[in-house]
Amino acid sequence: MAHPKFKRLPGHIGVIPDGNRRWAVARGLAKEDGYRNGLEPGMMLYELCLELGIPELTFYGFTQDNTKRPAVQTRAFQKACVDAVRMLSNRDASLLVIGDYNSPLFPRELLEYRERKTFGRNLIKINFLVNYGWMWDLNHLLKHDLASNNGNGPNVRDSIASRDVSRIDLIIRWGGRRRLSGFLPVQSIYSDFYVVDDLWPDFKKEHFYDALRWYETQDVTLGG
Amino acid sequence: MAHPKFKRLPGHIGVIPDGNRRWAVARGLAKEDGYRNGLEPGMMLYELCLELGIPELTFYGFTQDNTKRPAVQTRAFQKACVDAVRMLSNRDASLLVIGDYNSPLFPRELLEYRERKTFGRNLIKINFLVNYGWMWDLNHLLKHDLASNNGNGPNVRDSIASRDVSRIDLIIRWGGRRRLSGFLPVQSIYSDFYVVDDLWPDFKKEHFYDALRWYETQDVTLGG
Repeated sequence: MAHPKFKRLPGHIGVIPDGNRRWAVARGLAKEDGYRNGLEPGMMLYELCLELGIPELTFYGFTQDNTKRPAVQTRAFQKACVDAVRMLSNRDASLLVIGDYNSPLFPRELLEYRERKTFGRNLIKINFLVNYGWMWDLNHLLKHDLASNNGNGPNVRDSIASRDVSRIDLIIRWGGRRRLSGFLPVQSIYSDFYVVDDLWPDFKKEHFYDALRWYETQDVTLGG
Repeated sequence: MAHPKFKRLPGHIGVIPDGNRRWAVARGLAKEDGYRNGLEPGMMLYELCLELGIPELTFYGFTQDNTKRPAVQTRAFQKACVDAVRMLSNRDASLLVIGDYNSPLFPRELLEYRERKTFGRNLIKINFLVNYGWMWDLNHLLKHDLASNNGNGPNVRDSIASRDVSRIDLIIRWGGRRRLSGFLPVQSIYSDFYVVDDLWPDFKKEHFYDALRWYETQDVTLGG
């Protein structure tokens, strides 16, 4: 597929695919019917990143906060995440699922992705947050293994639960909300944050191009 | 002063006053001349928050990342922070300065604000980040005092260096950048994030009203 030319691309994109429930309600469907309509957009985004040569992509699947919702919704987004990971497996990617594995809310089908699995030509690193919690992630700092010190003492980046996820350059959130909602607080420290007003199931590749065009106009200072 | 009416106000506002250097350069001044022009906007914002009854306000003064800049700039923003805290003292506020006190880059004049000082009628809680670093803040989780446990083990919110700063409802960033740049990662988890394109020294009270008007249209879910 032909893409626009970009002068500078992000090395790692974080995706917050919000608005599935609003999308369903607007169509007279039950809220929980929205999630399965987020699968195809996810695959389209994966293909675009692969074609553009983006090295790392992180999807916000569901959080521990989300599981306070009605059980029928929780089951629906759990299933959508299992389906998404299955669709992404056996492609040219490495896949890691990150979240609280020790909870019954973590889908058993995804336990095998607790360690990164590599498929095909391994062209892109994909991280999928499933039953993820920012507090769960940072809590690992409180119980870090002193044996893992590198001589300079433990450090924050190497001691969080999500340590295998690198710094995020660009976060794209669909659905109009301008907040991070607990998305990887350490990796998001310096991220540029782009909001698409359309809902995630209404994904268009132009959303993604617009985000990349905006990103290439931003300076990168890492706080300096 | 008469203000617009708001249905719902944030309990805690975080302010990222960016764009001082760009403002100076656009006027043919040296970059370091921008910072002192940020003082008056800060006082105006303080007055507005006081009049509207906002209970807590946090200013992003300068960070450990910022101190990698040329020394003349570092001295200028250090001085602006000292002046700002002095202007805010002896008003009706409580004041706390948060940052790495143990570094020579932390202004000595502000050491007395390491513990919150209360002035006058104590109508608003103000936090001022000075020589602050997100990693410095989170590093406290790695060396938390086990004696501070409440019986349930240590927790993230109570164990970071900035533990006296509460959850932020609304972050307003001046200067057009759409990123947090290390601003209080734990307290920013659920914050709504509003960006003003104008530079901080060009502060107008309409910027603030616009942010509040936008904020009252946002749902508050705390990730649920």
